[in-house]
Amino acid sequence: MPYVTVKMLEGRTDEQKKALVDKVTQAVHETTAAPKEKIVVFIEELNKKHYAIDGKLLSEE
Amino acid sequence: MPYVTVKMLEGRTDEQKKALVDKVTQAVHETTAAPKEKIVVFIEELNKKHYAIDGKLLSEE
Amino acid sequence: MPYVTVKMLEGRTDEQKKALVDKVTQAVHETTAAPKEKIVVFIEELNKKHYAIDGKLLSEE
Amino acid sequence: MPYVTVKMLEGRTDEQKKALVDKVTQAVHETTAAPKEKIVVFIEELNKKHYAIDGKLLSEE
Amino acid sequence: MPYVTVKMLEGRTDEQKKALVDKVTQAVHETTAAPKEKIVVFIEELNKKHYAIDGKLLSEE
Amino acid sequence: MPYVTVKMLEGRTDEQKKALVDKVTQAVHETTAAPKEKIVVFIEELNKKHYAIDGKLLSEE
Repeated sequence: MPYVTVKMLEGRTDEQKKALVDKVTQAVHETTAAPKEKIVVFIEELNKKHYAIDGKLLSEE
Repeated sequence: MPYVTVKMLEGRTDEQKKALVDKVTQAVHETTAAPKEKIVVFIEELNKKHYAIDGKLLSEE
Repeated sequence: MPYVTVKMLEGRTDEQKKALVDKVTQAVHETTAAPKEKIVVFIEELNKKHYAIDGKLLSEE
Repeated sequence: MPYVTVKMLEGRTDEQKKALVDKVTQAVHETTAAPKEKIVVFIEELNKKHYAIDGKLLSEE
Repeated sequence: MPYVTVKMLEGRTDEQKKALVDKVTQAVHETTAAPKEKIVVFIEELNKKHYAIDGKLLSEE
Repeated sequence: MPYVTVKMLEGRTDEQKKALVDKVTQAVHETTAAPKEKIVVFIEELNKKHYAIDGKLLSEE
């Protein structure tokens, strides 16, 4: 606790994901005082066929 | 905002998904007065091996 | 199945919510061919203190 | 209703998943009095590249 | 890990919730071999005004 | 996009939440290159009666 979920379009590299979870964990730690070893981060990747804004899938653009 | 998530069994065609996000966005727009360009729709597909009713996975049927 | 979740700012009236779930269910039914009695809709309301864009809570604006 | 989601690392066998949904459904039925045929269980599998504790992805270990 | 979320109508007693998390944790432990102290359970309560089946909120019935 | 959800025990102050969404947005921006005005953060607060580890609600301790 806390549990953080980051939902984003697929396509980021492993290096970007490593940096993402590192920096987000640091940000949560500094602002909530939760110990870092209790902070969990989940990444959920979105496919453009499954994500729509304004009634249109991103894969349609 | 609003953010709509539709969780359903996998297997719908791309055409069905296009129609789905279009019509759902329209329905949310008409009833909440949110502008269409602010309405986001996510599709999440379920695998029959990961979805159970009455204690049985759908893949068991 | 399908399961639809609509996450939006709190403040809509009961009448708006009734219309919302009715129209969204209809939209999902027409486009996925799922029978209406199998379609579930959840509404999740967001508080402006718990929703941020561009690093700012909506309650700060 | 109830709707139960079990999020866990990928790698369990189909047999484990069958036992999991069976036992979890039984546990929810006994303690909430919900009829078993109304209890839904979703399994969500986590990839080690998408799950971090203490700022580190499990795939980094 | 695993993380279990139980979404159900509000109204269960504290005793029912204690029994629920106890039994569900036991069921997950037995079937996935995850140690009990790593199993997390979240309860999410649904209001009848925010839950619809067949296009109708449960509060309308 | 990205959409970030932070689930944590209730009890943080408004100041902590403001700092949290600010720093988390910054962390996501720096590591994914997403523009800050596209980054959304949701806070979900957990009640100790609805959160269990090792089969015990935190309210029982």
